[in-house]
Amino acid sequence: MEQEKKSTRIESDLIGEREISNDNLYGVQTLRGVENFKISNFHLNDYPNFIKGLAMTKEAAAIANHKLGLLTDEQKDAIVEACHEVAAGKHDKDFPVDMIQGGAGTTTNMNANEVICNRALQIMGHNPGEFQYLSPNDHVNESQSTNDAYPTAIHLGLYATHLEFMPHLKDLIAALDKKASEMEDVLKMGRTQLQDAVPMTLGQTFHGFASILKDEVKNLEFAAEEFLTVNMGATAIGTGICAEPDYSKLCIEAMRMVTKWDIKLSADLVGATSDTSVMIGYSSAMKRLAVKVNKICNDIRLLSSGPRCGLGEFNIPAMQPGSSIMPGKVNPVIPEVMSQVCYKVMGNDLCVTMAGDASQMELNAMEPVMAQCCFESAHLLMNGFDTLRVRCIDGIVPNREACADYIKNSVGIVTALNPIIGYKNSTKIAKEAMATGKGVYELVLEHKILSKEDLDTILSPENMIKPVKLNIKPQR
Amino acid sequence: MEQEKKSTRIESDLIGEREISNDNLYGVQTLRGVENFKISNFHLNDYPNFIKGLAMTKEAAAIANHKLGLLTDEQKDAIVEACHEVAAGKHDKDFPVDMIQGGAGTTTNMNANEVICNRALQIMGHNPGEFQYLSPNDHVNESQSTNDAYPTAIHLGLYATHLEFMPHLKDLIAALDKKASEMEDVLKMGRTQLQDAVPMTLGQTFHGFASILKDEVKNLEFAAEEFLTVNMGATAIGTGICAEPDYSKLCIEAMRMVTKWDIKLSADLVGATSDTSVMIGYSSAMKRLAVKVNKICNDIRLLSSGPRCGLGEFNIPAMQPGSSIMPGKVNPVIPEVMSQVCYKVMGNDLCVTMAGDASQMELNAMEPVMAQCCFESAHLLMNGFDTLRVRCIDGIVPNREACADYIKNSVGIVTALNPIIGYKNSTKIAKEAMATGKGVYELVLEHKILSKEDLDTILSPENMIKPVKLNIKPQR
Amino acid sequence: MEQEKKSTRIESDLIGEREISNDNLYGVQTLRGVENFKISNFHLNDYPNFIKGLAMTKEAAAIANHKLGLLTDEQKDAIVEACHEVAAGKHDKDFPVDMIQGGAGTTTNMNANEVICNRALQIMGHNPGEFQYLSPNDHVNESQSTNDAYPTAIHLGLYATHLEFMPHLKDLIAALDKKASEMEDVLKMGRTQLQDAVPMTLGQTFHGFASILKDEVKNLEFAAEEFLTVNMGATAIGTGICAEPDYSKLCIEAMRMVTKWDIKLSADLVGATSDTSVMIGYSSAMKRLAVKVNKICNDIRLLSSGPRCGLGEFNIPAMQPGSSIMPGKVNPVIPEVMSQVCYKVMGNDLCVTMAGDASQMELNAMEPVMAQCCFESAHLLMNGFDTLRVRCIDGIVPNREACADYIKNSVGIVTALNPIIGYKNSTKIAKEAMATGKGVYELVLEHKILSKEDLDTILSPENMIKPVKLNIKPQR
Amino acid sequence: MEQEKKSTRIESDLIGEREISNDNLYGVQTLRGVENFKISNFHLNDYPNFIKGLAMTKEAAAIANHKLGLLTDEQKDAIVEACHEVAAGKHDKDFPVDMIQGGAGTTTNMNANEVICNRALQIMGHNPGEFQYLSPNDHVNESQSTNDAYPTAIHLGLYATHLEFMPHLKDLIAALDKKASEMEDVLKMGRTQLQDAVPMTLGQTFHGFASILKDEVKNLEFAAEEFLTVNMGATAIGTGICAEPDYSKLCIEAMRMVTKWDIKLSADLVGATSDTSVMIGYSSAMKRLAVKVNKICNDIRLLSSGPRCGLGEFNIPAMQPGSSIMPGKVNPVIPEVMSQVCYKVMGNDLCVTMAGDASQMELNAMEPVMAQCCFESAHLLMNGFDTLRVRCIDGIVPNREACADYIKNSVGIVTALNPIIGYKNSTKIAKEAMATGKGVYELVLEHKILSKEDLDTILSPENMIKPVKLNIKPQR
Repeated sequence: MEQEKKSTRIESDLIGEREISNDNLYGVQTLRGVENFKISNFHLNDYPNFIKGLAMTKEAAAIANHKLGLLTDEQKDAIVEACHEVAAGKHDKDFPVDMIQGGAGTTTNMNANEVICNRALQIMGHNPGEFQYLSPNDHVNESQSTNDAYPTAIHLGLYATHLEFMPHLKDLIAALDKKASEMEDVLKMGRTQLQDAVPMTLGQTFHGFASILKDEVKNLEFAAEEFLTVNMGATAIGTGICAEPDYSKLCIEAMRMVTKWDIKLSADLVGATSDTSVMIGYSSAMKRLAVKVNKICNDIRLLSSGPRCGLGEFNIPAMQPGSSIMPGKVNPVIPEVMSQVCYKVMGNDLCVTMAGDASQMELNAMEPVMAQCCFESAHLLMNGFDTLRVRCIDGIVPNREACADYIKNSVGIVTALNPIIGYKNSTKIAKEAMATGKGVYELVLEHKILSKEDLDTILSPENMIKPVKLNIKPQR
Repeated sequence: MEQEKKSTRIESDLIGEREISNDNLYGVQTLRGVENFKISNFHLNDYPNFIKGLAMTKEAAAIANHKLGLLTDEQKDAIVEACHEVAAGKHDKDFPVDMIQGGAGTTTNMNANEVICNRALQIMGHNPGEFQYLSPNDHVNESQSTNDAYPTAIHLGLYATHLEFMPHLKDLIAALDKKASEMEDVLKMGRTQLQDAVPMTLGQTFHGFASILKDEVKNLEFAAEEFLTVNMGATAIGTGICAEPDYSKLCIEAMRMVTKWDIKLSADLVGATSDTSVMIGYSSAMKRLAVKVNKICNDIRLLSSGPRCGLGEFNIPAMQPGSSIMPGKVNPVIPEVMSQVCYKVMGNDLCVTMAGDASQMELNAMEPVMAQCCFESAHLLMNGFDTLRVRCIDGIVPNREACADYIKNSVGIVTALNPIIGYKNSTKIAKEAMATGKGVYELVLEHKILSKEDLDTILSPENMIKPVKLNIKPQR
Repeated sequence: MEQEKKSTRIESDLIGEREISNDNLYGVQTLRGVENFKISNFHLNDYPNFIKGLAMTKEAAAIANHKLGLLTDEQKDAIVEACHEVAAGKHDKDFPVDMIQGGAGTTTNMNANEVICNRALQIMGHNPGEFQYLSPNDHVNESQSTNDAYPTAIHLGLYATHLEFMPHLKDLIAALDKKASEMEDVLKMGRTQLQDAVPMTLGQTFHGFASILKDEVKNLEFAAEEFLTVNMGATAIGTGICAEPDYSKLCIEAMRMVTKWDIKLSADLVGATSDTSVMIGYSSAMKRLAVKVNKICNDIRLLSSGPRCGLGEFNIPAMQPGSSIMPGKVNPVIPEVMSQVCYKVMGNDLCVTMAGDASQMELNAMEPVMAQCCFESAHLLMNGFDTLRVRCIDGIVPNREACADYIKNSVGIVTALNPIIGYKNSTKIAKEAMATGKGVYELVLEHKILSKEDLDTILSPENMIKPVKLNIKPQR
Repeated sequence: MEQEKKSTRIESDLIGEREISNDNLYGVQTLRGVENFKISNFHLNDYPNFIKGLAMTKEAAAIANHKLGLLTDEQKDAIVEACHEVAAGKHDKDFPVDMIQGGAGTTTNMNANEVICNRALQIMGHNPGEFQYLSPNDHVNESQSTNDAYPTAIHLGLYATHLEFMPHLKDLIAALDKKASEMEDVLKMGRTQLQDAVPMTLGQTFHGFASILKDEVKNLEFAAEEFLTVNMGATAIGTGICAEPDYSKLCIEAMRMVTKWDIKLSADLVGATSDTSVMIGYSSAMKRLAVKVNKICNDIRLLSSGPRCGLGEFNIPAMQPGSSIMPGKVNPVIPEVMSQVCYKVMGNDLCVTMAGDASQMELNAMEPVMAQCCFESAHLLMNGFDTLRVRCIDGIVPNREACADYIKNSVGIVTALNPIIGYKNSTKIAKEAMATGKGVYELVLEHKILSKEDLDTILSPENMIKPVKLNIKPQR
């Protein structure tokens, strides 16, 4: 009868027996992991793509094992169905382990093995724990070790995250390009080393922002492609112990089918098994992206500084009162939060580097924190990009008058005279302009260096913001 | 009637009006912060000490304002009572804002102002939002700005965390010292550069571990003491605008009373207001601690490596099966998880440094992520220390026989002959021992370099693990 | 008469006049740079490839300017000849400026302009300083700014360094592969998490080392290719002011000819001019390489630890006495120095990242220190690789007996029984082996789990170091 | 006869014999180090304070050994005299070894032993290499190991460098304070988050700069004091093998006399010998200082931006032409070079951290690169400070008019009305001012919120730059 159904079961491992609630699909090893690692606020089920990566890995392995005759049809079908449920997020609550764990991911791998096994047992009409029909180690983990299944699942999970990530970045780029188009006629002064340089447009500024991010699309994709190389079949240390000769090939084929991605096998399984450089590479790529996004945010804050004591070239939307004491103050809170995300990403990159540096002999036991950092960085950036785009970039409005005023009396426009009157003469004009406060235009005419007509040609804004052939004879 | 009680109220700010549920003590500015900053998984109410820091700051300010006649007795009492509730964690749910936020903490400061104000209004018999009786800005935030209240609250919150932190560290040190005593007679070979060096005891090893951590107690305390210097009265930029001349002094006095800590005022409020170096200092101290803890964990893993193909000087407790494929394998999962915490702390330190480097003019807008990192690092270390102590250090058992075997035929003991026979002669013995596989003892006798009696004296274990005066005539 | 020839000349700039020794081809702006920047021990002439990069940049620009009719044949020919001399290292003494300089490289660019100009003047039969015939600014720097010429020269200089660098890396890889072949039959135990795992060969270990470095060849080449994209024609801020419309195209064509490399123009010159991400990318790639090389060095030190109290799987050549006090001690000094290079490279990468993060508006003024770090890291790695290869890897000799002993009684070989007797049964055997000290082989026979024949098949070394199909019926 | 004097001598070590030029005081082990470590451009003799540290260490040890009767008067006197010469820099050419070396400093220690020994032999009337009279290992290195002498020498060398360093920092602070006094009456607007805040003076800005550096004096001194704790007597691994029981005490006493510093012995010599945290601590302190100096440089660049399109609050001296293309341009080259030094220091700090993290068992073999980074950072900062002070800070001239203009129509001054009219009313005024472009003063009068007299009091500049008690009745 229903009410007599046992609410717990006993599971055992190398360490001994433990009682497990039948509410849980996870088993004894997951339980030990939960108890051993009470470390952080980051748990497996905060990272659905990682759980999906585990499920896809286990599904592919089951298909390969079935082809090798190591699983029955029934076993394989049950595992595959259970993996689909896990990938779809139906059992997230059964993945309670801390992301930061010792054991090089063994707890995570066993968590997946246990949940998939117990759910598959239910699908097969058995109860969780009846491992005589299907075992977490012998069947779900068959031909595998944590040392191939875990990094493979990380790779798949991070690749899925990368695919999610890219549209957020591309939307940001598109928003910058759109804003560039809107402002392509807003003339302003460019600045190098924070000092007045020569004229340009706000459109050029924002087009530049978009362009430097476009390079990162390519860079991230190069780095992400490495996730598609996995070490399935390496088993414990890369030698393939406990796996059959055809297993790697079959598993990769199955994984290509399961994921629809261009999965490849590592060229050297021993080398690959202790190597975490793919995460280092992707983290470096996120870091480089963060450097650029931070530059854009910093420039937005500088160029919108003011309202009356700053550069004030454009306004960004007011999102909230800027001060608890200064009435009417509006601050660039959105670029500021984005910059902080960038610093967090750079910090995470150092963690990834240092943990990656800790590889010893046939394994790097520090992989879990590397995975946590990579997932965290990607999520922070995604959230940041949407926030930056919607709550800041889209609402930028140029201050055309202020921008025009900067050009009007700037000394920097003297640069445009260089090709005609030479650097030395230009320098004299510039010095006199600085000393007297007079304008360049005025001084050139006063000294009768050029005709008004030629000067107008040279100093016309459209001629100063792009390369031109002036057809004016040099007179150095 | 009860059921007609309105379930929402309208609050307004610079940006406009918003409807707020009466279930919330927080108000319009908190709401905007929640909407603007959907960035991370870290929220204010994950850090109770920070909320406590905010409450203590507001309480001290209210007491000072009351002494200056700027708050009525009723207003002050209500604020103080509300602050006590907030500090006690009774309103954590009303602090939902993301820790990583733009605005240099304005949202956090206003969150505190709003919750304390609305709760104080209730205490006074009014409804939340009836700011004519008590206002978040004019009363709770009186004589303050985010730019002094927020960093002060961070300082208080981190100091509280530091006080919590230290016992965990000291317990770890005590556990190492206890283990050192247990193993003070376990002779073993020391190693430098991973090569056999000279004899020592496992007790000396663990005493050394304890000793290097003891230095960090002093270092952390030096760094933490800086938290007690605060910039209350700086208001917006350090000049004290909107505060009365006596306010700083009164506020510091009140804060000393409220916190029972030795609070001091910054020597220069302008300099202090944009400066976040106290967090950089404490984070550096945690980083240095992490470097040492990581060294201890790495050594524990090295020295317990094996069981048959490693150094095997001691065993650490088996916490869980070590492998999903290798039966019987037990891994050093606890030192591994501790090391990962250390890497995370080092990564956070870089984030703190880079965000700290972003100070501009009168403020550093990147403080929120610095606070997040400092709190996170401290919590990770605390959790890690307890885990390391209870699940690893306490259960270490030496392999006395293996340790003794290492000394028996080691060439390294030749070093003890140096003062008597000289480095050059010792080198000859060492070379012959290496080439022939013979023992040092045997060779010295064979070459009749020393009498058996002298040799026994020199090579007695107790004479090799500490400085000795041998009373044997040098014969170089 | 000869002796009356003046020994100095007067040159002037914006700041005023200065006397310059005629022994120097460099001029007034170089002199100011030398005086202003007495900072480090790194000078331009420590980096010949950078000087070559400057010369190639100036040569290409001169050819383009000549095609546009902006330089006479005589001027162009003289500049080109002077550039060839500079590129060949003939005027290194005239590049005395500190690599770490303010001004975003203006001093370096002017140093090149002045030396090339004065040398070209000599070639034309004039004296240095007779700028009426050829001017550093109007002719050598024509159509250029520091802001395009300087980063372009860095790109070319670093690409030249990359080309130099790769053979050193490839030689190291080849040495590892050769050593792998030599040791392909040396059976040993693999270790994960420093605990005994399963058998493998030393050949597999070293082949793994080689393989992980091979991935870095691809990664470095991807990163280095970005150096070939330059921003010539950007001039001051990317808008091309002072350059003619065809200049960029002609300059890139000339640069392809001068360098024989596949030079390309940046897609957006405004974005490119303030962006230093190519250095960040290459530095990240060197960092990732350093992580791997460090892992190899750490493993070499671990595996050669001993001689009697360590793992002792192989010996590395003795390069020097290991201790001033411990006679006969030999230490892994070469892997140690290589690891230190790796840490320096990782530190430099942080400097590159932080300086790269400092880009503001139309320029990043912090490029000079980024270039210094990239050149330094590349040189350190190159020197380290040769040292590691010649003085360590090439001389490694395996300790076959020690390696064989590890396998003999290891419990880890129980893993090979998994596919036949199942994980649970294997665990029981492992536990008993650990508890009793008995061997796995012995216990399996004792418990009559498998026939001796089957057991011999499963536990034959050749079957444990690669995937196998055993044709033995599972009996779980 | 003179010409028959041999020009070389033969020396031997564990590895074999080598011919050494008699021009060299160094011997066979130094020679091997030179050959083994062709890595970097940093050599021992680039760091005179380190050589001094080695000499002081060896002198103190010789005095202690003499007291113990282990050296004759003649030997001791000769060693002491040789040490004085070495400390005075007379034999720098004989310290040619690369700073970045394997062997945990053994080569450096032996370099010192050999030079001091050979020079002492000459003083005693013997020839270099006649080690029967005095031996590098048995006498100069007596009772020592590299593992205590080397880190002690680093400590002494870095402490000497610290003492040199501090005056440069203090001069910089004094220059900032002097500039603050000069500008104490220059009213300007403060800015938070780059947005207009409330009034202050340039004097307050520069006083703030000075004040934040003053905190670093204390922080550096705390960190430097740790250098005075040394591990002499630890010998090989901290157990004191080969040293007599009184040696440590006598050596510390001698070192106090030799150095005149308050030298102390480490509390636990085993723990101390593998621990490099003193360098990590001092490097962290330099990093924190660098963060602050970088902030000051960044602010100087921001506040002096312009001349016509920037903030232009003050001018910094023109040190060189700012551009190869933009005539008349003057750039903040000095703050820029200082910032780059700061980034290099931060990068070095990471190297120090990572190398410090590599301690294993009884030693950290990565000390040499840590020492190199610490010396390098200190020198870069010293040079940078002098450059910044003399070539920038001292010559700063305020633009009083521009600063005054910022205040005149700023909306930020509305903050001063808060205590009287309340935050909500002030917000309304601020909003209207922003929308209409009208001034705050004008609007308050227009709306008859305050009398002109009260308004003049509240908005008088002297009342806005410090806390005031206004005696005006609030009218919220």
